[in-house]
Amino acid sequence: MSLTRVQFFSISLDGFGTGEGQTLEAPFGHAGERLHEWMFATRQWRGPDQPGGSGGVDDLFVKQHDQGIGAEIMGANKFGPRGWHEDPEWKGWWGPNPPFHTPTFILTHHAHPPIEMEGGTTFHFIDATPAEALKTAREAAGGKDVRIGGGATVIRDFLAAGLIDHMHIVVVPILLGRGVRLWDGLEGLENDYQIEAISSPSGVTHVTFTRTGA
Amino acid sequence: MSLTRVQFFSISLDGFGTGEGQTLEAPFGHAGERLHEWMFATRQWRGPDQPGGSGGVDDLFVKQHDQGIGAEIMGANKFGPRGWHEDPEWKGWWGPNPPFHTPTFILTHHAHPPIEMEGGTTFHFIDATPAEALKTAREAAGGKDVRIGGGATVIRDFLAAGLIDHMHIVVVPILLGRGVRLWDGLEGLENDYQIEAISSPSGVTHVTFTRTGA
Repeated sequence: MSLTRVQFFSISLDGFGTGEGQTLEAPFGHAGERLHEWMFATRQWRGPDQPGGSGGVDDLFVKQHDQGIGAEIMGANKFGPRGWHEDPEWKGWWGPNPPFHTPTFILTHHAHPPIEMEGGTTFHFIDATPAEALKTAREAAGGKDVRIGGGATVIRDFLAAGLIDHMHIVVVPILLGRGVRLWDGLEGLENDYQIEAISSPSGVTHVTFTRTGA
Repeated sequence: MSLTRVQFFSISLDGFGTGEGQTLEAPFGHAGERLHEWMFATRQWRGPDQPGGSGGVDDLFVKQHDQGIGAEIMGANKFGPRGWHEDPEWKGWWGPNPPFHTPTFILTHHAHPPIEMEGGTTFHFIDATPAEALKTAREAAGGKDVRIGGGATVIRDFLAAGLIDHMHIVVVPILLGRGVRLWDGLEGLENDYQIEAISSPSGVTHVTFTRTGA
């Protein structure tokens, strides 16, 4: 069964999934890298040829990144800074071999030919509702799961449409004060999910949402 | 040394300290009792003559409620529903023996004579800034700590004024969607505090803020 999953999407304690003022130099705006330092510190992120790195619960979650995933859907702001569609050279933030390794669908109103990258990632650009995008991504996923990669607005839209089966949110103990909120307009979400929380010695708290039977 | 403390102030995952629509029957508005069920389930809350109740980390925090506290400051909305100052019989939500057992200062623009209750609680009504209120409460606390009792707006005002030494927030895994937010306007608060998080099997996460040296 192909599930729709959100994986370690990081938010601040005050609920922002990204800061204000995204630019080419600052993909997360004034948040900088502070939402993701916990991730950079894991063994999995650092790679097997690097010494050190934490091997606890943070690492276990990061190790799930590619497991069983056959496609990703992301918002246009995750793919590039405002105006990227006018730059014919822009191929995302991630260099020649992006960390997706699957068909990856970018939600955008701007038509754009697909971009084939190294390592199995192909970027497709689609103008679609969450349900339509999911149908397209699921067909491309070959029976595997579909990752909803963010940003906050995209995850919120998929939640509001009732399309997320499993979600893993990482609450980072910082207060961003401004940016894009994840939780707006989702009153009562807990009624549809089993929710667990586990704090890590790194300071973050992992909150998992597993959809219960309807 | 007399500290200023916030104790187990409960918020939803989306950051609301109370719901919308406070009334006499619903002190927390549409949140009902859902922000505090974790607390009602503890041994300490149920009382020593009641069987059962959880005796873990939730209980340890609740047991701190009266420890070392010499006075409380609260907002007008914690004391009563809108218009309480026009009801000469209104003496708070808590019955004849409120759970404070100390001088308790209510921040209000409405002058009101003090109300002496059973068990050591006396309600005083003051129109003051956070710093002024703290000075008054500290004098009444006899060298003990001052509890900032809430609601969310009052805690936020004391945080913004740099007056909180220790804060314990309980994040409850529900999404209220609307109400009064705790975190608004507090960007960078983490720079002034050591922050720890510990999840409980009950589902809530306790987040403690301890002020670091300035």
